[in-house]
Amino acid sequence: MPATPSSALEGGAPRLLTLTTDFGLQDPYVGIMKSRIALRAPQLRVIDLTHAITPYYPEEAGYWLSCARGQFPAGTVHVAVVDPGVGSERALALLGSAGQWFLAPDNGLLGLLAAADPDAMSYRLEADALAALGIAAHSSTFHGRDILAPLGAELASGRVRPEQLGTPHPVLPGCLAWARPEGEALRGQIAVIDRYGNALTTISAQQVSQCTNPAVQLAGQTLRLVRTYAEAAKGECVALVNSQSMLELAQRQGSAAQALKLRPTQPVYLLYAHPPLDRVEREPK
Amino acid sequence: MPATPSSALEGGAPRLLTLTTDFGLQDPYVGIMKSRIALRAPQLRVIDLTHAITPYYPEEAGYWLSCARGQFPAGTVHVAVVDPGVGSERALALLGSAGQWFLAPDNGLLGLLAAADPDAMSYRLEADALAALGIAAHSSTFHGRDILAPLGAELASGRVRPEQLGTPHPVLPGCLAWARPEGEALRGQIAVIDRYGNALTTISAQQVSQCTNPAVQLAGQTLRLVRTYAEAAKGECVALVNSQSMLELAQRQGSAAQALKLRPTQPVYLLYAHPPLDRVEREPK
Amino acid sequence: MPATPSSALEGGAPRLLTLTTDFGLQDPYVGIMKSRIALRAPQLRVIDLTHAITPYYPEEAGYWLSCARGQFPAGTVHVAVVDPGVGSERALALLGSAGQWFLAPDNGLLGLLAAADPDAMSYRLEADALAALGIAAHSSTFHGRDILAPLGAELASGRVRPEQLGTPHPVLPGCLAWARPEGEALRGQIAVIDRYGNALTTISAQQVSQCTNPAVQLAGQTLRLVRTYAEAAKGECVALVNSQSMLELAQRQGSAAQALKLRPTQPVYLLYAHPPLDRVEREPK
Repeated sequence: MPATPSSALEGGAPRLLTLTTDFGLQDPYVGIMKSRIALRAPQLRVIDLTHAITPYYPEEAGYWLSCARGQFPAGTVHVAVVDPGVGSERALALLGSAGQWFLAPDNGLLGLLAAADPDAMSYRLEADALAALGIAAHSSTFHGRDILAPLGAELASGRVRPEQLGTPHPVLPGCLAWARPEGEALRGQIAVIDRYGNALTTISAQQVSQCTNPAVQLAGQTLRLVRTYAEAAKGECVALVNSQSMLELAQRQGSAAQALKLRPTQPVYLLYAHPPLDRVEREPK
Repeated sequence: MPATPSSALEGGAPRLLTLTTDFGLQDPYVGIMKSRIALRAPQLRVIDLTHAITPYYPEEAGYWLSCARGQFPAGTVHVAVVDPGVGSERALALLGSAGQWFLAPDNGLLGLLAAADPDAMSYRLEADALAALGIAAHSSTFHGRDILAPLGAELASGRVRPEQLGTPHPVLPGCLAWARPEGEALRGQIAVIDRYGNALTTISAQQVSQCTNPAVQLAGQTLRLVRTYAEAAKGECVALVNSQSMLELAQRQGSAAQALKLRPTQPVYLLYAHPPLDRVEREPK
Repeated sequence: MPATPSSALEGGAPRLLTLTTDFGLQDPYVGIMKSRIALRAPQLRVIDLTHAITPYYPEEAGYWLSCARGQFPAGTVHVAVVDPGVGSERALALLGSAGQWFLAPDNGLLGLLAAADPDAMSYRLEADALAALGIAAHSSTFHGRDILAPLGAELASGRVRPEQLGTPHPVLPGCLAWARPEGEALRGQIAVIDRYGNALTTISAQQVSQCTNPAVQLAGQTLRLVRTYAEAAKGECVALVNSQSMLELAQRQGSAAQALKLRPTQPVYLLYAHPPLDRVEREPK
């Protein structure tokens, strides 16, 4: 999992709040959340991480937050809304880790973040505690606007303490897990297919660095590990450590996801030691 | 029409200005408008509502603003630019309603907002008054940058009063109207098809709540009213009150717009009383 | 080339930094750059110009910056990241022109900006100088995050002087050039195809105004010059000066790029004097 070298903001600097949703940018829902935030914490700086999370796949938001958190200072509040169960009995959760706060539905979204930090604290939000802050669900389908946006603003501005908001409670794990040993390999998963068709995995740079002669195996294929795209032949599918310090599968001048028929959550194996593999030229599909 | 529970900003808080356009995000036009705003009011907070309004359909911007205004504090300035007639003789207008200001071409965009508030004040902007502020059209095609952005900044910063900018003048009504009684029904319209294929109408939650046993009729079909998506059968098209407090037509696990061949401005009828309708399972197209 | 009527910000106003990339908005990379900026300069105002630059076409970013710079105040820092050569030996460059700063890979992106201003100063960034600011490449593929974002923040906040960052060095020219005389015509190029299929050229309004009876020629076709879209017949392809004060090729109610099979970098000729051309009605393809 990615490291978290948090830095302090300059004295008197505005706090940061990030937004990660599956709302897209066509409709005005993101702007409406920002108004709710501005009403309660006008000095807060709001940064969009992405609003293009795959609907029904909250774990994707958690994965991106795990990658990005190292770039944000202590005190940052991250609000994530991928909420297919809104209106049902799913809870809302707050996770504190390394001085940053993560607010989201408790539907697997926070699983990777919790698993990355044994010292993380998590809380299940309680309606009574929210009501004391004047926060309540005015709709059955838009808790991002009604609850998470104003609550994120309150947290970031330091006016409430997490323990006021609910009781300690572990978060749900979700369908992604950080890579773990399994026989002669580490077993990870594909977490995200990015817009270039690269597949980002749950295997970290640190885990890769502990192998002496690693190779990557998935769905009957073996890929060699390279340091940069430029080392791959045209059309070749390879594995490399990306800018997020995670293992990524890529095809030079093509889409690895198409070439290898990859899908999120699919297992990926990092073999600890493997005979060297040849560079193979082939046409991208 | 949606309610407007405006709230005051904290003392000394930055004012808000929202942007709603059909510019998209591919080209840098939105960023250029933001520079013009920052030049005149650097402390102003700018919130993007949406830049994906359907070109040639300014009423869509007015509908979203009607939905969103309740989330913004008094003093907020909303700048909307959907302007197929730029360069022609169409006027620019300013509408004040419930302590918020709306700046837009007078092409129907402001019609719903004016109709929602009998106390709204509207002005037709005059070139002389703008020139006194150093604001003039430097191009015949980008009045959003040349006029509306700097004027919005001046208004939001409180340096000009609306009555300085032009003479009182009613705004043009446009092709959408809030639902009105017509025989044994309320006659509304489809205002927006969202990215999921849901159809948002001009019938408000309040109007729905005044019916004893309502049903929705359009194009020869009758839809039952449900409280949440989960009450609908798979593939069933239903009507429900959405998070914007408006009546919406939706298909469970599908696109109501496709299934029912819906288009913006099409009439929708809310029958005041109707025999109960059965839940009907069917495959989405 | 567009004029640059820079204006000063109000006293004590936050400085501006713009971002122009080919990252898109699907993945969180833009948000991660903004965090790096906020860490070093929390009061800085960040404006997105566009994140939809064509990959492998850095000159497109330079063209948009040339168009937009006139709207930004002195002191603004523009960070542009279109970086197919990241990880190779390409340098990073800083260009100062008319009181604004442009930071980008030295791959042609800055060529138009340098050519527009004979007084521009440019520097090649040096790793030692960056290291003294605590700035270094932590990845081989994301110098936007690791170097350009934090460096842009330092420059905008006035804590470093450009001459501290490297040695004077001319920037690479790239594949676009401002229009120049060639026989009985000015020879320019198509720089950008916008989302409507209009083609923006490197011929400026000022150059057009110096011709007595100009026409536009490209690929065996001659287009007449009009003042507004409305003067064109339906389906007719014409040339006009656009809101960016540049010559643009457009088809009324259609896509000039499709109708004329236009592509970026293609030459376009402005004939100084030409017999008048008739308005021609035809169906858009």
